[in-house]
This record gives sequence, structure tokens and C-alpha cells, in this order.
Amino acid sequence: MSKTLAINAGSSSLKFQLLEMPAEKVIAKGQVERIGMDEGVFTLKYNGEKTEVLKAFPDHRAAIEEMLEQFNEKQVVSDLSEITGVGHRVVAGGEWFNKSVIVDDEVLEKINRLSAYAPLHNPANAAGIEIFRELLPDAVSVAVFDTAFHQTMPRENYLYSLPYEYYTKYGARKYGAHGTSHRYVSERTSEILGQPLEGMNLITLHLGAGASITAVKDGKSLDTSMGFTPLAGITMATRSGDVDPSLVYYIQEHEGLTNEQMLYILNNKSGLLGISTLSSDMRDLEEVEDTNEHAKLAMDMFIDRVVRYIGQYYVEMGGVDALTFTAGIGENAAEVREKIIDRLGFMGIKSDTEANKVRGEERVVSTDDSAAKVLVVPTNEELEIARDVEMLKNKQGR
Amino acid sequence: MSKTLAINAGSSSLKFQLLEMPAEKVIAKGQVERIGMDEGVFTLKYNGEKTEVLKAFPDHRAAIEEMLEQFNEKQVVSDLSEITGVGHRVVAGGEWFNKSVIVDDEVLEKINRLSAYAPLHNPANAAGIEIFRELLPDAVSVAVFDTAFHQTMPRENYLYSLPYEYYTKYGARKYGAHGTSHRYVSERTSEILGQPLEGMNLITLHLGAGASITAVKDGKSLDTSMGFTPLAGITMATRSGDVDPSLVYYIQEHEGLTNEQMLYILNNKSGLLGISTLSSDMRDLEEVEDTNEHAKLAMDMFIDRVVRYIGQYYVEMGGVDALTFTAGIGENAAEVREKIIDRLGFMGIKSDTEANKVRGEERVVSTDDSAAKVLVVPTNEELEIARDVEMLKNKQGR
Repeated sequence: MSKTLAINAGSSSLKFQLLEMPAEKVIAKGQVERIGMDEGVFTLKYNGEKTEVLKAFPDHRAAIEEMLEQFNEKQVVSDLSEITGVGHRVVAGGEWFNKSVIVDDEVLEKINRLSAYAPLHNPANAAGIEIFRELLPDAVSVAVFDTAFHQTMPRENYLYSLPYEYYTKYGARKYGAHGTSHRYVSERTSEILGQPLEGMNLITLHLGAGASITAVKDGKSLDTSMGFTPLAGITMATRSGDVDPSLVYYIQEHEGLTNEQMLYILNNKSGLLGISTLSSDMRDLEEVEDTNEHAKLAMDMFIDRVVRYIGQYYVEMGGVDALTFTAGIGENAAEVREKIIDRLGFMGIKSDTEANKVRGEERVVSTDDSAAKVLVVPTNEELEIARDVEMLKNKQGR
Repeated sequence: MSKTLAINAGSSSLKFQLLEMPAEKVIAKGQVERIGMDEGVFTLKYNGEKTEVLKAFPDHRAAIEEMLEQFNEKQVVSDLSEITGVGHRVVAGGEWFNKSVIVDDEVLEKINRLSAYAPLHNPANAAGIEIFRELLPDAVSVAVFDTAFHQTMPRENYLYSLPYEYYTKYGARKYGAHGTSHRYVSERTSEILGQPLEGMNLITLHLGAGASITAVKDGKSLDTSMGFTPLAGITMATRSGDVDPSLVYYIQEHEGLTNEQMLYILNNKSGLLGISTLSSDMRDLEEVEDTNEHAKLAMDMFIDRVVRYIGQYYVEMGGVDALTFTAGIGENAAEVREKIIDRLGFMGIKSDTEANKVRGEERVVSTDDSAAKVLVVPTNEELEIARDVEMLKNKQGR
């Protein structure tokens, strides 16, 4: 048995989970928030106990050192050398990475170079990797890319109808995101249904604050709703999803906004928040939808956009065998799920209303005679990351 | 019997058709091109004869005067007073116009004010209307809006997931286009099938240089692929259709382009032309698709985008009873049509390959046992415009 760390480093945060592998048992988990700010917060959950440390973490190194010190102090590990692998979530893998890889200097350089595609995330991911390689030099370091799962998309799906030279010069294409989540719930769907992914047309709906929908054919991503960046696709908590680019310019001109300001609004002030003028959180909207017209409108638009993408992928794949809901809204918003499934009733897809009341648990929520299975599968990107570390360690014979 | 003119005024062109109404017989048609340039071209087709006049037309007034003079000279009319109605295509009708209207000063002012939404088109449309009101003062003047048919879209379909205030402040929403064409082919589909539009789920595919797809439920537009402007939606001859706005900014930044320059590229250098790097014309691509990889790719992408929208509207409407192809590609590109219908085979929608060889003729091109009817219906916006003039004249008792 060995211990594997799954790391998700953001620009001012670091989430971690320590797993016993291959037993796939979570030992400890936690996060560091507000890195680089005056007051940081370190949180560790271990053995039913929660530890919180309030202090400033000037950079990622300080955050990671705190975490390792706490591991020693709380005896999460007897010795840090028990941690034999560290898996890092990396946001942008471009066309260079279609699967997880062991990090060497060349990989690290590529991750840095891919920062052009994810200027807020990849530098933080790379920084995390470098610090762990230094502090845990004997552990295998693995990069797990958010985009890798979508590298199987065919060219006609990932290209935009733009001058072709933008693709060759700048890699202007659809990369998608949430790949690790879509992959994980695809595999779980196959296991729960006892059907191989080969031959299965599956639509995975990762509906969280960020939200994306993927057409998974034969276990491979055929198409996905996010685009060059996570801005595209369906209505999200604060992201607009698809918009006519002409309209974006029109608004800019009338509001006197720079490109950067407009992009900020599209990413942070739009979506459920923008329409409802109330909240970016679906739970808040559900609470007031009967009395607040804008909350109701935001929910209706969210449902409409999800339904449109289901339709796209239904026809792109040539049918659908199963739909799997995951992430915050997908796992917990039973009413939203019910409304989405209801819209598919004409196709013979039916929700089992009793089963669909589930929150955050794996369950088949469609009726036995439904034309396609519908499932709820809580996502588990950390486990998927730890599995990739385990698999690559074994390949390497370590 | 009376004569009605259908007018389509562009920024540097003017197309006209003179019809005998209510017999719906085309008497004469033609166009003036290159208005405002050194060498203009006037063309008239009447009585099996074609007249061409090469000279400069400094403005729309000169173009219209030439047309009326030629009508007299070629005896298209014995007297201009025989022309009792003039119907004008107007590109942007905003939320003010959900149907065709007789033009008075207030309507004309509104058309001018809507120029914000169609800066190249509405001023030309308004200019055309003013000149005809002056030159043919006794004829009823009617405005027929490209957007009017889509005013039945529900709010969750026409709004974008943007801050709501942009809708109230700037009318930031989906307006769609090609409404007169979608309406015309919807009506023809109903007549050809002998089924009322009420109760019918219809997808109309206007596939020309500009291309849009509309979900027509109970004879009303439920959703359409073009957006705030005609840039959005599927791949077109030179327009990009849907693109992640982040990518647009990314390209701008790397190419050093202004918003205006980028918008020009999205509208004029993208689409089939951009991908194929060869031609914006589907006929050119069909010719070389077997040997030219880029031509093949552009066609594949076009077909994929059409198929995606069919999927969206199939699920948004809750099923489809008929699909109707129209406009340049829709009426003539039998192979493209065949490939699109083939992708729907899994739904039981089947092309009658022999019938589908049709070009530019009204025909049902699906098999008898197809799960949905598929039709080719050549569009006829001029006739639809003339019908609206006739209807409004009758209402007014003229």
C-alpha cells in the first residue's frame, strides 16, 4: 500500500486529497485558501477531526509546507516518504497531452508554455508541480489534464469555422474542460449499468458553477460544450456560455468597455447571476423561483440550454443510451434534473420521480422502461487523478 | 388585377420583382448593382427578353428612376399608376415589428432608428422606401421585416445569458433573420403536405450564402440559429457562425486587430471560405472534395453544424414532423442534403435518393415510410412580400 496526493492548485488556492492506493481510500483532505493575501486559511480533515489554521501564506510554497507539516504533526503519515505519488490537475494540455503523464522537465516546460491558453491556471499548476518535486523528490509526479479526455474529438467537431491559419498559427480550436470529471463519471456509468463503454452513446452532464456537457461515444469524447476556453457552451453560474460575437462588440461599444473588461463580464457577471440579477447559485434561485420572475427565467434558460445540447449530441452520436448528471447542480438539484428529463419524455426517456429525489448519491433515476438510462454519479476527480498516478507508477515499475 | 413591386434594397444594390396580384404572376424582374460606383449595371428581364444598361448610378434614386423609365420604355406597364403597391424588405425590425406594416412617417422613423442593429442595411431599406413614396405617391408602401417572423420566440430562447440590463438598455437579444423565407417555406410545406401548420413541428433550413435554421412549431418561430445579428449559428459561406467569444479576443490580440477588423474577418473571411482556403461557394467545394482535403473538411463542418441544430430543435420542439430545405445550397446541393438526411437515419428519417436528386424544384425527397417528411421548397421572398402588400391593401380597403 502507498499514499497518493491529488493536488488542484489554483491561482490563490490549493486543494488536496491524500488517498491510500490501490485501496482508493481517502485518508485526509483539505485546502489552503487566500494564498498571497493577508489572511490565509488552511483546512485539514483527518480522522473525523477538522483542523483550521489562520495565517498568511505568501505563496504556494508556504501553503504546501504548511500542509506537509500538518501531515507530520497530526500523524496523517509517519513519514513523508510514504507519499509515493503526487497527481496534479492541470487545466490546459493543448494538443500535446491526450492523457496523463509522468512529469519531467520537458513536460513542465510544455505546461508553462500552455499558459497562453489558461493564463490564470497553468502557471499555478506548474508552480505546484515544481514545489512538490523539490519537497517530495522521491514521489512520482503526474500531470492530469482537464482537456486530455477531449483530444479524441474529430476535426470537424473541434475546429471553428474561422480562417484555417488561426488553427495552425495559434491552436485556435475547441479544447473543452472538465475532462477528468467526464471520464470518471463515464467509467462509473459503465460499471453501474454493467455495460461496456464500447458501443455506448453516453451524454455526461457536469453541471456545477462551471458547466459542460459531453457526448461520449464508445468511451471517447466526441464533442463537448466548452470551447477554446470554459466560457462557451451552456448558461453557467456567472459565465454566459454561447453568445453572438457581434453582440459582444455591440455591448462593448455602447458601454465603453475594453476587451478585457467585457471578457470579465462574460466570465463573472453573466449566466445565472446576470439573468436573475440575484444570485449565481442555483439553490438561491430554486428557493425563490415561485415569487421571483428573474430567478424563474434564469432557471428556464439554464434548462433550455442543457436541453439544446442534449439534442445536439443525441443527433451527433446517432442516439443515446444513457445520460449521467454530476457536479453541484447535477448531483443535488433534483428539480432541475426532473425538468430536464421531462423535456425528453417525447423520446421515451422517463424519470423515476421517487428515485430522482436523490442528492449526491450514485443512483439510476430513470424508470425501468425508459428509452435511455439516466443516472446521478457524484464526480470524483481526485480519485481519478490518484488512479492515473497509480497506473503510471505501475507502468514505470515503481 | 393590380401590379405590385417587391423591393430588396442593399447598400449598393437594388433587386426588384413586379408581380400581377392576386394572380401571383411574375411580370418582370431585375436588379441594379454597383450603385454609387463608377460603373453600375441595370438588368431587366421581361417577356423573355433581357435588357442590360451599363452606366453610373450615383445613388438609389438614380437606380430607381432608371427602373421606372425602363418599365415605361419596354412597356412593362402602360402607366406607372398601375403599380398600386410596393413592398420593401427591411432587415431589422427589432421588437417593434412582429408583422408587415403599411409605411407611414412613424414606421419610417422607426426603421431609421433600428439602423443600430443593421447599420449597412436599414438605412438603404429606408432610403428605398422614401424614394418610392415620392416617385409613386399613390402606391401603398409596405415594410416586410426579416426579423418579424421570429418575434414569436419565447423569452428563454431569445435572451442571452448576459447581465439582464443589456436587454433593457440595448435590446441585446436574439432577433434572427431570413424570417420571410422561413415563413414562406413553412406555408408551402403545409400546402404541399396537405397538413395544417397548427400541430406541426417543422424545421426549416434556409441554406444559402447566409444560412439559418428555424424551429417552426404550430407555424410560429420557436427558435432560430441566427442571433443578435446574422453572424451566429451554423457555418456559412463567409460567416463563422457560433464561436467562443474568448477565442475571438485571443485571435485579435495575437493578430493585432481592432474589433472592427475582427468583425470583418468573422463576417467575410470565415465560414466555408475560411476553412477551405479556397472558395465560399459550396459548388466549388463539391467539385474538388475528393482531392482537396480542405474542401472536404469545410463540407464536413457545414454538415456537422446543420446536424447539430437539427438536434437542438428536435428536442426543443419535442419531435419533428417535417424538415424543409431551401435557398442556394438547400435547393440545389443534392449531395449535401443527402448527407444531412443520412445522419438522421437512426431516427427513421430516410431520403428517397432518386427524388432527392432534384434541384430547385418543390418536391418531397423522403421515403414514404420516413419518420419525418423531408422537402425541398425553393424560397420566394418576393412573392411573400407581394402577398403581404396585397393583404394589407385589402385590409385598408384599397
